[in-house]
Amino acid sequence: MDIGTKTLPWPSRVIVCEVGPRDGLQNEKAMLTTEQKVELIERVVQAGAKIIEIGSFVHPQAVPQMADTDEVAKRIKRVDGVEYRALVLNLRGIERAEAAGIKKVKLTVSASRAHSLANSKRTPEEVVRSFSECAEYAARHGLELSGAIATSFGCSLQGNVPLEQVFSVIACFREIGVKELSLSDSTGMANPRQVYEYCTKVRAAFPKVTWVLHFHNTRGMGLANVMAGMLAGIVHFDASFAGIGGCPFAPGATGNIATEDLIHMCHEMGIATGYDLDAMLAVARSVREMIGHDTASFLLKAGKCSDIVNAKSDNH
Amino acid sequence: MDIGTKTLPWPSRVIVCEVGPRDGLQNEKAMLTTEQKVELIERVVQAGAKIIEIGSFVHPQAVPQMADTDEVAKRIKRVDGVEYRALVLNLRGIERAEAAGIKKVKLTVSASRAHSLANSKRTPEEVVRSFSECAEYAARHGLELSGAIATSFGCSLQGNVPLEQVFSVIACFREIGVKELSLSDSTGMANPRQVYEYCTKVRAAFPKVTWVLHFHNTRGMGLANVMAGMLAGIVHFDASFAGIGGCPFAPGATGNIATEDLIHMCHEMGIATGYDLDAMLAVARSVREMIGHDTASFLLKAGKCSDIVNAKSDNH
Repeated sequence: MDIGTKTLPWPSRVIVCEVGPRDGLQNEKAMLTTEQKVELIERVVQAGAKIIEIGSFVHPQAVPQMADTDEVAKRIKRVDGVEYRALVLNLRGIERAEAAGIKKVKLTVSASRAHSLANSKRTPEEVVRSFSECAEYAARHGLELSGAIATSFGCSLQGNVPLEQVFSVIACFREIGVKELSLSDSTGMANPRQVYEYCTKVRAAFPKVTWVLHFHNTRGMGLANVMAGMLAGIVHFDASFAGIGGCPFAPGATGNIATEDLIHMCHEMGIATGYDLDAMLAVARSVREMIGHDTASFLLKAGKCSDIVNAKSDNH
Repeated sequence: MDIGTKTLPWPSRVIVCEVGPRDGLQNEKAMLTTEQKVELIERVVQAGAKIIEIGSFVHPQAVPQMADTDEVAKRIKRVDGVEYRALVLNLRGIERAEAAGIKKVKLTVSASRAHSLANSKRTPEEVVRSFSECAEYAARHGLELSGAIATSFGCSLQGNVPLEQVFSVIACFREIGVKELSLSDSTGMANPRQVYEYCTKVRAAFPKVTWVLHFHNTRGMGLANVMAGMLAGIVHFDASFAGIGGCPFAPGATGNIATEDLIHMCHEMGIATGYDLDAMLAVARSVREMIGHDTASFLLKAGKCSDIVNAKSDNH
């Protein structure tokens, strides 16, 4: 019999960035204490995270769940080689980040003109250009920048977001010196064919950028989209412990892809992540307990593939 | 700016086989009436299904939910060009299928030796050889055969199922003349890398077989596995309305990939299915109502991508 050897270009290793403390918890009704957040962040790092988004320096009235990010940042025990990142919207935010010892900040814009205008009365390009004062501040104070482009794959206001529009936003970020960019799909509208196409094209056009993908599992395509991104050569993926993080336009819908589900898929595929999956599962269980409700994590419900094998082996 | 044209070999069209009336309902506590089953089957066909698995001719005490398959088969209004398929385990089953006017029967075996021995005290190869009397009966009565190979991607008893073992089972099916075979992952252990590898190899070794893939979304990889199958050239996929189905080894875990989620992903990717997605969503809502509990369907919770766009467009 003829067993072929054809294969797909899987990466040997990916970098999973934990965004649960920010993108996850900001969508939860439960207000975790600073101590709980510090505990979760430290445990995620112990489990293997090399990049973790610990919170956001935004106005406390806008996102009360993130009001203690300064305190969280100051209290967490830092581990060498780990990137502690936070989201900021403006100069005031980056000043707070710097004061709290955060060395990397993420600037967010929506690629959708309709969404950007509705949210901020400015075009996406105007928003990114307004970040130039943050970029100058970062350069002066030795902070690193990351740019997040929301609605890169579709928008609940304007529907389709043409790739040309995403390119225009990327070009603005490049102009202010941002070297790391994430394409984000918070509304869960991306599909694998589109992800592959967009990633292939942005990589070809902007080869010096470090690309990150941020998917929600709103319509079940989260891990398929990760897979499409991998095949297009992307190795940085955001994910959220326990799969928390919702979609503002689909109440009750699934949130971010769960960190433990992503790590599990990678390990099953022989792709290294550097995480201890059991330790991350324990974190996810703690998150579920702290927020007080069930979440969209598959692994929390079904366990790892190896669990059912081992459990059954005990009986036979 | 340089926008490349690299793409992946997506199919232009796939065939989605509805297995909800069998693989879905057999796992539900709620006992649907014959009328309800007939209604669901007829509505799925109206929505565009060209292949539908209507039930199983097994012992009523073994699977009470399927005890009325004979009656269901007789009552459904048949539509030309639609394949009404049922599962059988032995000669008695295929005789019942024939008497009920079912022209295609599916024979199931487990690729895992451990699983096969535990279930039937026979090796997988012995089980398939025992189907030869069914094959002879089918040939005499003009019935078509389909073979389903469970635990093709992993088994809860033995863990890894080597591809050589799957090949051995395939070879036995070919010996008795079966031309259509499905690789099934009822326990949700398959991963995309493995799916691509297995599919590429079985297609190369058995090019005359029509291959079908059957995935559960137990660990969130269901649609990613479909995608891997598509890239390996497979175009037949099983799915279950509302995502019902379940995994016997992980109580509470997600079931089959939901027909509506799969169709939605395909349509978003520009891959034709022949289904009217809105009609299938209406069927899924009816299924949820009939069984009386929430299911793992993403679309039932979040709606289509186009829904949120249209809903928002109304407001702006």
